[in-house]
Amino acid sequence: MSEYTPTPRTQVRRLPDRGHYDSETVHRILDEGFLCHVGFVVDGQPFVIPTGYARVDDCVYLHGSAASRMLRTLAGGVQVCVTVTLVDGLVLARSAFHHSMNYRSVVILGRAHAVEDRAEKLLALSAFTNHVVPGRWDAVREVRDSELKATSVLKILLREVSAKVRVGPPKDEAEDYELPIWAGVLPLKLTAGAPVADPKLPEGIGVPESLKNYSRARG
Amino acid sequence: MSEYTPTPRTQVRRLPDRGHYDSETVHRILDEGFLCHVGFVVDGQPFVIPTGYARVDDCVYLHGSAASRMLRTLAGGVQVCVTVTLVDGLVLARSAFHHSMNYRSVVILGRAHAVEDRAEKLLALSAFTNHVVPGRWDAVREVRDSELKATSVLKILLREVSAKVRVGPPKDEAEDYELPIWAGVLPLKLTAGAPVADPKLPEGIGVPESLKNYSRARG
Repeated sequence: MSEYTPTPRTQVRRLPDRGHYDSETVHRILDEGFLCHVGFVVDGQPFVIPTGYARVDDCVYLHGSAASRMLRTLAGGVQVCVTVTLVDGLVLARSAFHHSMNYRSVVILGRAHAVEDRAEKLLALSAFTNHVVPGRWDAVREVRDSELKATSVLKILLREVSAKVRVGPPKDEAEDYELPIWAGVLPLKLTAGAPVADPKLPEGIGVPESLKNYSRARG
Repeated sequence: MSEYTPTPRTQVRRLPDRGHYDSETVHRILDEGFLCHVGFVVDGQPFVIPTGYARVDDCVYLHGSAASRMLRTLAGGVQVCVTVTLVDGLVLARSAFHHSMNYRSVVILGRAHAVEDRAEKLLALSAFTNHVVPGRWDAVREVRDSELKATSVLKILLREVSAKVRVGPPKDEAEDYELPIWAGVLPLKLTAGAPVADPKLPEGIGVPESLKNYSRARG
């Protein structure tokens, strides 16, 4: 298990017990999630935009239309923050003050760089596709050169990274525990419903195995 | 139904059909979500931090420990971006290129201001609590002055706001529709499990009605 070295910018200062810097914790959160929030700055104004991502080894890839304002901004090597948050539950305490959430989050600071190498671009695109649905890359029509050209891929190395995790029941004031107020956790989970076929799908094409009992939970 | 005026910073330029600027769409997304990602800048580095929020009329409130670095930074009136994203499904197309997500998101640009007025602070705190679990504020132990003092509340007016919404099946290349590849949507939803009582809960305190069949869906 390798460690990311906390920096003054990634060290969890309040409630330091919640901070984690080992690659196992960080990778597991990144692999269970699939939506990140990307922060970047334009003319002093921060923007936070939701987008897909995939982790490969010790980096995350983002992608989007080559025409996208965000992708073009990020490709310029500006400072970026990529945050992934998994919500695990609502924590209901006896006082409003101690209400909380159970969650796991990863914050990545760094700079994005455009991936130009064709092989690495293909690797990243297959990672995006398989990250969302395992095995999907081999199940779909082969990518075209024009599509590859129209897609920007960005890479951010996992260097300045921290995870934050809260688990368990509420922590109440000692004297509040005897109050007749229900307290505990309401677990929350992103769950999949039954697959909805495209109305234009020809008859006789069955739902792939990978979509049955779909779950994001990872090892 | 009122409208937020799109600005060059909030106008959805790519796929403009996905952009919405009416308060009904924006409020509905904000009321269904409960976790936002807040973007702010420190020494040129953007940070994106997940946190709870609540909407009251035409503003959103954030809160946290008065000791929190984020809260102290934001209270200085710096530029901020608050983004709320609801994931509705994975969109599986016949080509990797046309894979997408169904989602609803709101991006709010502005500046945060610290709420010092006691009555407004209490209003915001009750809104946070009831936003997560309806009626919870009246069910918990009354807030103390020391807790009020230890909590910072920030307010951001809904002025420069846009929503982005994708719904429906994949949009594939015309010639791909006849391929023998399953395509459609895998619906995703944040769902609640059975409430888990605090191990320290005295016997005989039942689960509140508000936690049974808990759902974030609004309107």
